Amino acid sequence: MADDRFHVYDTTLRDGAQQEGLNLTVADKLAVARHLDGLGVGFIEGGWPGANPKDTEFFRLARTELDLKHAQLAAFGATRRAGAKAADDPLVAALRESGAPVVTLVAKSHDRHVELALRTTLQENLAMIRDTVSHLRAEGQRVFLDAEHFFDGYKSNPAYALEVLTTAAEAGADVIALCDTNGGMLPDELAEIVLDAVRTSARVGIHCHDDTGCAVANTLAAVKAGATHVQGCANGYGERSGNANLFTVVANLQLKRGFDLVPPDALAEMTRIAHAITEVTNVTPNSHAPYVGTSAFTHKAGLHASAIKVDPNLYQHIDPAQVGNDMRMLVSDMAGRASVELKGRELGYELTPEHTKTLVARVKDLESRGFTFEAADASFELLLRDTVAGERRRHFEVESWRVIVERTKGGELVSEATVKLHAKGERIVATGEGNGPVNALDKAVRQALEQLYPELAKLELVDYKVRILEGAHGTDAITRVLITSTDDTNEWATVGVAENIIDASWQALEQAVTYGLLRAGREYP
Amino acid sequence: MADDRFHVYDTTLRDGAQQEGLNLTVADKLAVARHLDGLGVGFIEGGWPGANPKDTEFFRLARTELDLKHAQLAAFGATRRAGAKAADDPLVAALRESGAPVVTLVAKSHDRHVELALRTTLQENLAMIRDTVSHLRAEGQRVFLDAEHFFDGYKSNPAYALEVLTTAAEAGADVIALCDTNGGMLPDELAEIVLDAVRTSARVGIHCHDDTGCAVANTLAAVKAGATHVQGCANGYGERSGNANLFTVVANLQLKRGFDLVPPDALAEMTRIAHAITEVTNVTPNSHAPYVGTSAFTHKAGLHASAIKVDPNLYQHIDPAQVGNDMRMLVSDMAGRASVELKGRELGYELTPEHTKTLVARVKDLESRGFTFEAADASFELLLRDTVAGERRRHFEVESWRVIVERTKGGELVSEATVKLHAKGERIVATGEGNGPVNALDKAVRQALEQLYPELAKLELVDYKVRILEGAHGTDAITRVLITSTDDTNEWATVGVAENIIDASWQALEQAVTYGLLRAGREYP
Repeated sequence: MADDRFHVYDTTLRDGAQQEGLNLTVADKLAVARHLDGLGVGFIEGGWPGANPKDTEFFRLARTELDLKHAQLAAFGATRRAGAKAADDPLVAALRESGAPVVTLVAKSHDRHVELALRTTLQENLAMIRDTVSHLRAEGQRVFLDAEHFFDGYKSNPAYALEVLTTAAEAGADVIALCDTNGGMLPDELAEIVLDAVRTSARVGIHCHDDTGCAVANTLAAVKAGATHVQGCANGYGERSGNANLFTVVANLQLKRGFDLVPPDALAEMTRIAHAITEVTNVTPNSHAPYVGTSAFTHKAGLHASAIKVDPNLYQHIDPAQVGNDMRMLVSDMAGRASVELKGRELGYELTPEHTKTLVARVKDLESRGFTFEAADASFELLLRDTVAGERRRHFEVESWRVIVERTKGGELVSEATVKLHAKGERIVATGEGNGPVNALDKAVRQALEQLYPELAKLELVDYKVRILEGAHGTDAITRVLITSTDDTNEWATVGVAENIIDASWQALEQAVTYGLLRAGREYP
Repeated sequence: MADDRFHVYDTTLRDGAQQEGLNLTVADKLAVARHLDGLGVGFIEGGWPGANPKDTEFFRLARTELDLKHAQLAAFGATRRAGAKAADDPLVAALRESGAPVVTLVAKSHDRHVELALRTTLQENLAMIRDTVSHLRAEGQRVFLDAEHFFDGYKSNPAYALEVLTTAAEAGADVIALCDTNGGMLPDELAEIVLDAVRTSARVGIHCHDDTGCAVANTLAAVKAGATHVQGCANGYGERSGNANLFTVVANLQLKRGFDLVPPDALAEMTRIAHAITEVTNVTPNSHAPYVGTSAFTHKAGLHASAIKVDPNLYQHIDPAQVGNDMRMLVSDMAGRASVELKGRELGYELTPEHTKTLVARVKDLESRGFTFEAADASFELLLRDTVAGERRRHFEVESWRVIVERTKGGELVSEATVKLHAKGERIVATGEGNGPVNALDKAVRQALEQLYPELAKLELVDYKVRILEGAHGTDAITRVLITSTDDTNEWATVGVAENIIDASWQALEQAVTYGLLRAGREYP
């Protein structure tokens, strides 16, 4: 178990799941918990047993299905009802029965919320806190308290907000997490209030939302003011603008403030874990996420490429390997010789000066015609391989293709594609149907090649982007298509450019399949 | 022009354009500049004339094409070359000739960068700054200086970093923007350094990147320490994890710190402007963006619904109307009753309460399915007319259509479309060929209708945009197509949404033609 002096407390499975469009099954929750444990967080809040059947089930299954190395589970719940006893409250019973070693109770600390939302008196709210905390403690669970709307409450009635704190602490709560529930705080004002809370001698934690774009900074400001427990969510998931991104918080504290929060080798898995969690949640990863985003250490180089070669640390705030990420150089229209060389090396090719020269010329030519390689690594690598080989290489040759999209008289929509290919000495004709022209083409190509290359079954198109480039006569303009593909383990992007959107899509598709075959270990015949 | 005592300085068109995958045409840049001016920013950095032909063109066109109400344009460029004279430097000449009232010079302030990247001496770097600033000043331009890598430079050699500041200020630079170029700073340490810089008596600005998730907080910390010029980008665009999100910075300062930065009625357009810019950049909008994201004021509520009704401000950190956003309780739209009514009036329709109600419901339904009317006025007007008429009206009815795109064995590319329509009692079958499927469909429709409606000869498609919208868990992605058309005098935009890109294009096309006929005075039959 992690050092108890400073808590890294994850609430992805409870507060993060409040995000619009994010829906986790019990199996999803177990998978996310394993990933978070792999990162080395201290606590994983699993949900609200008793209030949510899925969460009750999560805690039940966790006993047998989860083998946590670092983390302890926390069950979230509310203080008992007004005018009742904690010992008799069925929701409190569900917390006891969850089997979680920690219970995190949410309590109101804003006077107006007590009156308007809870509809009870300020005194009864304190009694509810006192009773519920001491009851659960007596029953053998560790208790943390989330002081909801604490900062707005402090501004409305500071004495009462602080009384909530001291009441909980005296009743036996180990930590009182101050929640900026509406997320409206800025760091300076927040730090002042945390300082005042720390003076009560209660152990203070912090729970921030990103409504001012300051969730991470607010968390750091609270830590500086004396908070020793930070809450947040994987990838900054959460309602509205999200919760504090726990990954960013941990990386900032550990790499820039010397905190020893998670094992360094676990930190070096952070990028992988962040992406693995997006696979579970099915939320598109934010490529710009600090530390773990695919763009986080990406440079459009050109100008600085030569200096980057001398000392990469002049151009990056940390060594990306510390969080398991990589520096990437984009090949862009500002790119020169140095960045192409660098990119080649990144991909594992030592280019001769002659090859570099040819490749730079081809990239420049293609970019002037609307191609972009900065977002299409795989296309760049195919171009590089062709340049080194001195000719265009492929696993298959295309004879022709045709796509038909039709809306029938009955209103039915049909997309059908036929491809004629040559591969391994065979001529193959195949047809595919899809929900659109590109999908139909994709199906036709796989249909044609799957017998020869069964690994294509794993290949999947995961993103398709279209950009119309200047032309100022509408559909006469040039179309650029970017396709992202995956084989479950890796992702790669390819680019096609043509007047005709279907032709551009075909180019990107053909390269996506070619690169997928190379990735699968199929060298050119 | 805005008050000069505090600068809101936008660098979307220069530093924001460094974002991976973001490529702006000159027309895009002009469109973004108009939107930023509509928000009321003080300065718009347009690019690097001389170094980038597109940017040279932007400044040339800006003279006639941009009629800015609030903002001044700034041209970005570097100090002169080592060992030369500013007056003789062709890149400095391009800055003079840009016609921009402001030039922002980037200069090294980190000793190791001077030596490794610039490959000159520390003294020569100072001379380059002195010479270039004073030359441009003498030639009549206002000069700001971006002190690149300032914070890392200060940590490496504080005396030299500060000397860069004072050298620039003494040579006549009005503002020296301290740049956290690698984006690695945290607010507390950054504020200390800004305080030291402010002591030099140079006027200090701040330019932050989001590599620690603290770009906004760093900017606010710098302002508190005495910076009076903030740089940032629309929607937080920028290299790696992005630049400081200028919208978040402005909203925080104006709504929470009492700064008077942009007109309140312009601030109330911020959400619309943020989204309009994403339509130009074709970057998927971040629904979680503070203040302007579609989820920024969205609640999964339920529990608190009644308390929210009593006092919504208990559950939101600001009134979302201040930034033109809305509180949402369910997964729904951005349109409210008031804005639909307003929009109807803007188009010249007085809607009954009953019509407004029906129209709001239809807009909400369509927006939840991926439509957007923000950028498709003509589609909205057709919907409004249909609502008032109580039925779907058109000049023509579609029986069926078909598109074939084929690459022949000889490598020839053929796009052919056939439409079958009914208009004025006739059944018309027509075929069109084009350079792509949409162009072919467009030609087929005109071919079919031109005899009945000769004014269609004037109609032209001038822009075609495609966006792939994320499907929810388990569902397929959907495609949104926006088409802009013109009749030489006016421009109008229409939207189509479907799984199939050709179907979505067809919808937008059919509406474009319908609206064009209405525009030409052809009422529905």
